Amino acid sequence: MQGLMQEAELTLDRLLTYASEWHGNTPIVSRAADGSICRTDYAGIALRAHRVSNALRAAGIGKGDRVATLGWNGYQHFEAWYGIIGIGAICHTLNPRLLNEQIAYLVNHAGDRIILADQACRDILVEILPQCPTVECVIFLDEETPSPLGNGDIPATGYETWISSQPEQGNWGAFDERQAAGLCYTSGTTGNPKGVLYSHRSNYLHAMMVLGPDALNLSARDTVLLAVPMYHANAWGVVYAAPMVGAGLVLPGQKLDGASLHELIETEGVTYSAGVPTIWQMLLTHLRDTGGTFSTLQRVTVGGSACPETIIREFRDVHGVDVIQGWGMTETSPLATVSIPNRRISALSPEEQVAYKLKQGRPLSGIELKLVDDTGQQLPHDGRTPGRLLIRGPTIASGYFGTDSTSLDEEGYFDTGDIATLDHDGYMQITDRAKDVIKSGGEWISSVDVENIAMGHPAAEVCAVIGIPHPKWDERPLLLVRLRKNASASAEEIRDYLKGRIASWWIPDRVEFVDDLPTGPTGKIDKKKLRDLYGGLTFIQSPEDKATAKRSGADQA
Amino acid sequence: MQGLMQEAELTLDRLLTYASEWHGNTPIVSRAADGSICRTDYAGIALRAHRVSNALRAAGIGKGDRVATLGWNGYQHFEAWYGIIGIGAICHTLNPRLLNEQIAYLVNHAGDRIILADQACRDILVEILPQCPTVECVIFLDEETPSPLGNGDIPATGYETWISSQPEQGNWGAFDERQAAGLCYTSGTTGNPKGVLYSHRSNYLHAMMVLGPDALNLSARDTVLLAVPMYHANAWGVVYAAPMVGAGLVLPGQKLDGASLHELIETEGVTYSAGVPTIWQMLLTHLRDTGGTFSTLQRVTVGGSACPETIIREFRDVHGVDVIQGWGMTETSPLATVSIPNRRISALSPEEQVAYKLKQGRPLSGIELKLVDDTGQQLPHDGRTPGRLLIRGPTIASGYFGTDSTSLDEEGYFDTGDIATLDHDGYMQITDRAKDVIKSGGEWISSVDVENIAMGHPAAEVCAVIGIPHPKWDERPLLLVRLRKNASASAEEIRDYLKGRIASWWIPDRVEFVDDLPTGPTGKIDKKKLRDLYGGLTFIQSPEDKATAKRSGADQA
Repeated sequence: MQGLMQEAELTLDRLLTYASEWHGNTPIVSRAADGSICRTDYAGIALRAHRVSNALRAAGIGKGDRVATLGWNGYQHFEAWYGIIGIGAICHTLNPRLLNEQIAYLVNHAGDRIILADQACRDILVEILPQCPTVECVIFLDEETPSPLGNGDIPATGYETWISSQPEQGNWGAFDERQAAGLCYTSGTTGNPKGVLYSHRSNYLHAMMVLGPDALNLSARDTVLLAVPMYHANAWGVVYAAPMVGAGLVLPGQKLDGASLHELIETEGVTYSAGVPTIWQMLLTHLRDTGGTFSTLQRVTVGGSACPETIIREFRDVHGVDVIQGWGMTETSPLATVSIPNRRISALSPEEQVAYKLKQGRPLSGIELKLVDDTGQQLPHDGRTPGRLLIRGPTIASGYFGTDSTSLDEEGYFDTGDIATLDHDGYMQITDRAKDVIKSGGEWISSVDVENIAMGHPAAEVCAVIGIPHPKWDERPLLLVRLRKNASASAEEIRDYLKGRIASWWIPDRVEFVDDLPTGPTGKIDKKKLRDLYGGLTFIQSPEDKATAKRSGADQA
Repeated sequence: MQGLMQEAELTLDRLLTYASEWHGNTPIVSRAADGSICRTDYAGIALRAHRVSNALRAAGIGKGDRVATLGWNGYQHFEAWYGIIGIGAICHTLNPRLLNEQIAYLVNHAGDRIILADQACRDILVEILPQCPTVECVIFLDEETPSPLGNGDIPATGYETWISSQPEQGNWGAFDERQAAGLCYTSGTTGNPKGVLYSHRSNYLHAMMVLGPDALNLSARDTVLLAVPMYHANAWGVVYAAPMVGAGLVLPGQKLDGASLHELIETEGVTYSAGVPTIWQMLLTHLRDTGGTFSTLQRVTVGGSACPETIIREFRDVHGVDVIQGWGMTETSPLATVSIPNRRISALSPEEQVAYKLKQGRPLSGIELKLVDDTGQQLPHDGRTPGRLLIRGPTIASGYFGTDSTSLDEEGYFDTGDIATLDHDGYMQITDRAKDVIKSGGEWISSVDVENIAMGHPAAEVCAVIGIPHPKWDERPLLLVRLRKNASASAEEIRDYLKGRIASWWIPDRVEFVDDLPTGPTGKIDKKKLRDLYGGLTFIQSPEDKATAKRSGADQA
């Protein structure tokens, strides 16, 4: 017997319609490439998003067609996003930081018909479009009348011109909530990137799951600085959660340096932000250098990679800002766990709570986690035993776009490829990527744990640990250190620092100082490249090891 | 093109499973009929709920079968609830405060096969069961080996005996999320009560909608006193929202007087509660009389009927507790609007915010509201123009159990039967029930507005306004006042108090002092009964009108 409740498909257009009707004058603030600030609101965004929908319809775009975006966080990108998904087309967010050949691969794999791009991405398009036969036209989001792309075949139009003659009304939604809404490819450090195809339902449920007080805690009183790019898994769902509650949005464009973000936070009264550790590292460095403070910022969600303890402490002790760690991946929409105190931990002292803030947190309701060994046996939730982390739920991918492959086990769990522990309180901690874990003498050494502890050395700015082959132990850890500006340290000092802080057999056999640690397109350290660069090192310590490395004040960053 | 995300039906069993796995030792505290306190936790509740499911299966209960509960808020009721819905059966919550013939009507209309009841409800069952042929057995939730019901035909079993031999494991869910989960009849002051048939999906979505910071703001750090009965529209959704976040629960049983609730709040560290104004009135009176205070209570949701300003102010000014008004009805799951500040109102002074706290609030995301006149024309959101309130969304009823009738308009909106205004900020205010509004000279007088203002008179404890026939104006308002203990006032004093506070033509033509105002089964004042009792009065003022009425200290309540 079915219930007698109204049928209302959970389509994402409802979120912007709600925001425009009930929070119409809530500000959306956007920084353009030239640094200028544009102010609009949800009511304005919704009207122009309808123009986008009508322009897409006029171009023959309909349900299931892929329309790509290639740009930074700005209001036109946000409007276009809702314009695309409102008519059942699929918003494929391209990451401009990828290599051109990767972007071309993605455009072709997705079969994108239209690309809406920032003019800053013109050079990328000029190079790739001759190899992208499915693309019918390019719309430049922030250019009135763009110059030709240099390739006569594909027309380029300015966004304002494109939408100006279109009506501000139209119908959205009225399709199945399982209709695809978004396509986002994994960064794919191994093999080709894989496309996660979100549905309206999965993104809608994800937005509901993340806005509660045990996750992002978003309300109509918040002003959100979107420091995480929209091409990074729907900006961690905030693209949907913010209009769902009518929170204000600040879209920082391409300038994510400390000074630019700090200025926006202060002038716009930002209460909440979300971003990767690198962003916060830069912001804190800027504040340290300038003596800057925050007057409205209350809390920050950190994700993308494990949050160093120093960030948590400096935000809390110097600035009174609460840092909340979240974990997820493109395949998990992305947010799946958040490190918010449960009732027991909320009664601990702030100092005792730090240990839990360093974990990736408790699963959101709706998410199921399983910890297993290599044979699939379930492992205890004792906070010590590492295992493969499997995950299941309505916001988790079941497969990848354009392939028949599925990565679900027989119970429907997705293998995250992460190694983690789960403690008695339900806090999950990633100890490593399965492919980064160092297998030494049959036991596992967590590269992440060693990195986090090493980062506590006052001279260390960024650390990375990889396994290099060892004749006796199979693999042993190599620690790569980039020093802080004007700091100095020797390899022996670093190793001495680690003694007593980690198990003695975890201490890296060799420490190398480097000027640069390569990062991937989402700002994470690229361990694959590190293994290419340093995997050939032996355990004979280099002559410099005994000497003290020193970093000059001149910074290449 | 459909998204490639996991299929996971939003069935409500997931909530208790989540709570038991990730918040297993979070306390569930329950007060029995004899006043004793029982302590369990989510892990314990889940195991016993599985026993209930297995006992139901053994009794031949399956998907779609109706199983009724008849009792107060206690842990067995909570376990049984999840035991019923976990196997796809329908939990029909009966209100023990209804008249016996009403309860019999509901049991027969629903076709209940089993009734799980508190022993306090034995007399009801003895009387009604001979007229209820569908009932196969009765389980007494709080009795080990019950005495026979006096009617040999229907066996009565003790709950512990019934579940003790059943296993603690079993499968839940694995059915369509549109499967019916709960059946709750409207109180039905006009005509027969109508059954709202909730689905797993509608209640799951409702729980997600209400737990955010713009609604109940529930977290794993909360301890919730459930002062609203579970038979009152799923205890306003808290039956689902609390396990969804792993909040602690305090179930007060039948004793809802001020002293009993205050004791529970203090001993159990309650942070949050929800209930009707009458409950809070009693609690505040108790604290006033005893000088009691709160040490942990932070906030209270008030609903069921409009919250008097005195409650909001006394909680805030004397006790530092935030009162949040919500609005909804059985047909709306129930919560649909909540009065939480938006960004503009949060910047006002506490004094200025009171005007918004008195409104029923802004719609939750997912809810659509429409304000129309008698011809269906949309009315402005100006905070002044009253109209019929229509509502649409995935948590709103589409029809009633056992009838083909639907009360939706051509756009799918449900007519709430309420008269309301909507202001520029999106705050809805109920001005009356459509059937209670007083139509005087072609204009509408809100009985609720007059009541609320009259309640501000220091001598008034409870006020009610009804329309009585008038030869010239069709209807004119009659104000009925129950005075505070030991207080006195004359009709002229009350009318003088109203002058300048409401429009002169809204001032009641006649004021009567009464010892008692009849309430319905959910604690609301029964206007239908008032019209029966006082609708025959004329506008010739009674002789006592000039005299001063006085209420003695002896209280019949």
